[in-house]
Amino acid sequence: MGESYGRWTLGNDEAVMPYLTSANLACGFHAGDPHIMRKSVALAVQHGVAIGAHPGLPDLMGFGRRALNVSPDELKDYIHYQTGALSAFARTAGATLQHVKPHGIQYTMFERNLDLARACAEAVAELDAKLILMTMADTKFDAAARATGARVAGEGFADRPYTRDKELVWPRVVFTDPERAAEQAVMMARDGKVRTVDGDVVDVNVQTICVHGDTPGVEKIVAAVRKALEQEGILVRPLRDWL
Amino acid sequence: MGESYGRWTLGNDEAVMPYLTSANLACGFHAGDPHIMRKSVALAVQHGVAIGAHPGLPDLMGFGRRALNVSPDELKDYIHYQTGALSAFARTAGATLQHVKPHGIQYTMFERNLDLARACAEAVAELDAKLILMTMADTKFDAAARATGARVAGEGFADRPYTRDKELVWPRVVFTDPERAAEQAVMMARDGKVRTVDGDVVDVNVQTICVHGDTPGVEKIVAAVRKALEQEGILVRPLRDWL
Amino acid sequence: MGESYGRWTLGNDEAVMPYLTSANLACGFHAGDPHIMRKSVALAVQHGVAIGAHPGLPDLMGFGRRALNVSPDELKDYIHYQTGALSAFARTAGATLQHVKPHGIQYTMFERNLDLARACAEAVAELDAKLILMTMADTKFDAAARATGARVAGEGFADRPYTRDKELVWPRVVFTDPERAAEQAVMMARDGKVRTVDGDVVDVNVQTICVHGDTPGVEKIVAAVRKALEQEGILVRPLRDWL
Amino acid sequence: MGESYGRWTLGNDEAVMPYLTSANLACGFHAGDPHIMRKSVALAVQHGVAIGAHPGLPDLMGFGRRALNVSPDELKDYIHYQTGALSAFARTAGATLQHVKPHGIQYTMFERNLDLARACAEAVAELDAKLILMTMADTKFDAAARATGARVAGEGFADRPYTRDKELVWPRVVFTDPERAAEQAVMMARDGKVRTVDGDVVDVNVQTICVHGDTPGVEKIVAAVRKALEQEGILVRPLRDWL
Repeated sequence: MGESYGRWTLGNDEAVMPYLTSANLACGFHAGDPHIMRKSVALAVQHGVAIGAHPGLPDLMGFGRRALNVSPDELKDYIHYQTGALSAFARTAGATLQHVKPHGIQYTMFERNLDLARACAEAVAELDAKLILMTMADTKFDAAARATGARVAGEGFADRPYTRDKELVWPRVVFTDPERAAEQAVMMARDGKVRTVDGDVVDVNVQTICVHGDTPGVEKIVAAVRKALEQEGILVRPLRDWL
Repeated sequence: MGESYGRWTLGNDEAVMPYLTSANLACGFHAGDPHIMRKSVALAVQHGVAIGAHPGLPDLMGFGRRALNVSPDELKDYIHYQTGALSAFARTAGATLQHVKPHGIQYTMFERNLDLARACAEAVAELDAKLILMTMADTKFDAAARATGARVAGEGFADRPYTRDKELVWPRVVFTDPERAAEQAVMMARDGKVRTVDGDVVDVNVQTICVHGDTPGVEKIVAAVRKALEQEGILVRPLRDWL
Repeated sequence: MGESYGRWTLGNDEAVMPYLTSANLACGFHAGDPHIMRKSVALAVQHGVAIGAHPGLPDLMGFGRRALNVSPDELKDYIHYQTGALSAFARTAGATLQHVKPHGIQYTMFERNLDLARACAEAVAELDAKLILMTMADTKFDAAARATGARVAGEGFADRPYTRDKELVWPRVVFTDPERAAEQAVMMARDGKVRTVDGDVVDVNVQTICVHGDTPGVEKIVAAVRKALEQEGILVRPLRDWL
Repeated sequence: MGESYGRWTLGNDEAVMPYLTSANLACGFHAGDPHIMRKSVALAVQHGVAIGAHPGLPDLMGFGRRALNVSPDELKDYIHYQTGALSAFARTAGATLQHVKPHGIQYTMFERNLDLARACAEAVAELDAKLILMTMADTKFDAAARATGARVAGEGFADRPYTRDKELVWPRVVFTDPERAAEQAVMMARDGKVRTVDGDVVDVNVQTICVHGDTPGVEKIVAAVRKALEQEGILVRPLRDWL
């Protein structure tokens, strides 16, 4: 969320926000200028949605989706900078940050370089031991982050297909069918399982479910996901309330 | 301080820091990338120097010294963003921010547009009522800021000549003679006065004295200023201790 | 045109381009990254549309719509840089640039500061004496540009209302009704006149007619404008063919 | 050269330029803003030095020294954009570009990904078949570039040590001793050989010799290199005169 920038609009945050419990807000490096950040925080507060920082790589032109060979210290500095910036908007809106979710290609970078994974987890814990780090569930990143003692929530994607290794299919594919995303979300939340592109069903240890905010028609996807979860009797609550 | 950027070095912060009580650290918009910010905060903490945010206009190429026609809301957002970013580095270093000092052309913009002056003061107070805003002493900006109820410290410049209207001489002139800067600082701190370029002596209500960090040989200027103040028996303390 | 950037799309260039004779392409400072520039040049070449550089102020966050206090030399450098960059894409596509049109707030800045207006005209002529500079018709900018000897085309806006002083109404208003824009375009091209917001009809010396590419539904506006001009028997040709 | 930016100065171009035949000028992405580019071109023209574009990755904070996972098309677009921008300054100064030398980490990226190496060579040839591409001598990049039919000059480094595989020693080491750089330059130019860090002497097919402009005291290094070459009776001429 909050991935507009200057004159450009991305996503449909006003339509999506009512269906969320936690929102990842861009912090200026890959998207989201200071004005967008202020407005996004206000929108989240208005709907009682828990706010998380969504720090990206310093690559606006590439939307933070191109691997950049940063050092662990550089990565920490980028996370501190952007999370601090967002926390100021949260503070002036009477809120505090619930979590941090690294944006874009970082998950992939962390999977290949555990020094970066650990640096990310440390960066979050150094800011506030209660701040939750979102990781991709059941990955090396997730394991490395938990090993640092950081407070971690493993994330499952409702709207992207998984390989049998529980990685996301690449090149990037996003489900645009709300029912398909809803079905995947329910299976993750209710059963702790995900169906891979090969048709297998595998276990997945998910504490939070993500839908990408920049998909056209995303408001229908999040509505369908939320409705399906609630119909299954699953309590849909922000992480801070129960993790 | 902290006005290096990436591969580029500006100033001589390691030599200057020991002589200061309060340091204004660039926050990424006009200068100061996240790595510089981390290192600058660490240097300030090491020398017991109080840390302030030095937010600039989003004009890296122009070093924040060119007027940009921002709205009051945009200005507030820029101050919140940058001050928040710096506060994260302070937090992870075990420090808190003492003050905010607007950088570059902002003083001039505020003097001409009091809506901006007030927005600046409100932005600081909204973050934290105890956070001190540095203004230029005896200006319309200073008066407008105090009228909002913000905690304000009026700043005098040791190293720049004043007009009879207590404005800085323009185009930009900076004293490079340490003794001249020291003399002006003492006169401000001891007598509450400044000698203008016309030779007059006028009252000036100064709570903090500034020396610009990007002047070649600045470490000699700050050393001379500090020595002269102490020789006059003036207590040189951070604002947070007494304002 | 070409005002998308990275992950963000603005306008509907594929639908609009077929109706144009000349396209102003963003060059990276206010919008338009190098990939967008390449694609936009290719689209223009495909439709036989003459290509112009649309250089902006270095203010991506503000989309080049906020006055920035640049010097005449800085302005020239920005025009040279961006026009040169676009010319490389034109060259590799087998085309050459027809014109340069300053973007955004620059028209307003030039009207208030004729040193900037002259610098703009000189910057264009220095690159190539045949390169056409678009100005706003009947303005001080237009007169100052012509006085430098630059090759100038005065521009009329089909989609924005005029004051009785032949300035654009401010704050910014854009017609979204295709018929209204078409009517204004025909009156400019056929009669050399424009109806102001006060209802007066005044003379206007227009050589080129502009429609803004970032208006929702702009493809209907340009289609209506072109159809109306052709129904009046007006030849719609690129400037390079007849100016 | 031309690697200053805004308020920041890097190198000592005025002292270095008189000793060069060809200068690589930064083009705005890793360093070098439009004002610096104008001044750098003027300085080169004043000393009769042939001008080359030194395009970098879009990573100002990292000075283009961090690998960024760009596609071949993105790379071409960045080279076109920056080379075009510099060519505008050359044009208004009455000069034309002699060559293009990719900056920073690109050599390393090309060595690992020959699609990028080829894209680079094609980008240069598409702009102008006579434009010379500088490569690192005897590398895969050099071979891939020559295979595209581009006009190529293999570069040797006077101021950096080589491994036995004719790669540069990493992490980055730069000679600051003028005599050592002069000796390596003479050996390359006169004998077509270089002494590696292991003490071996290996053949190297060099057409141009590089000294890095951001080394402190670089003016002494280039003076020593030039003097040593001339004392050996080696003609020191721009590439365009003889390649």
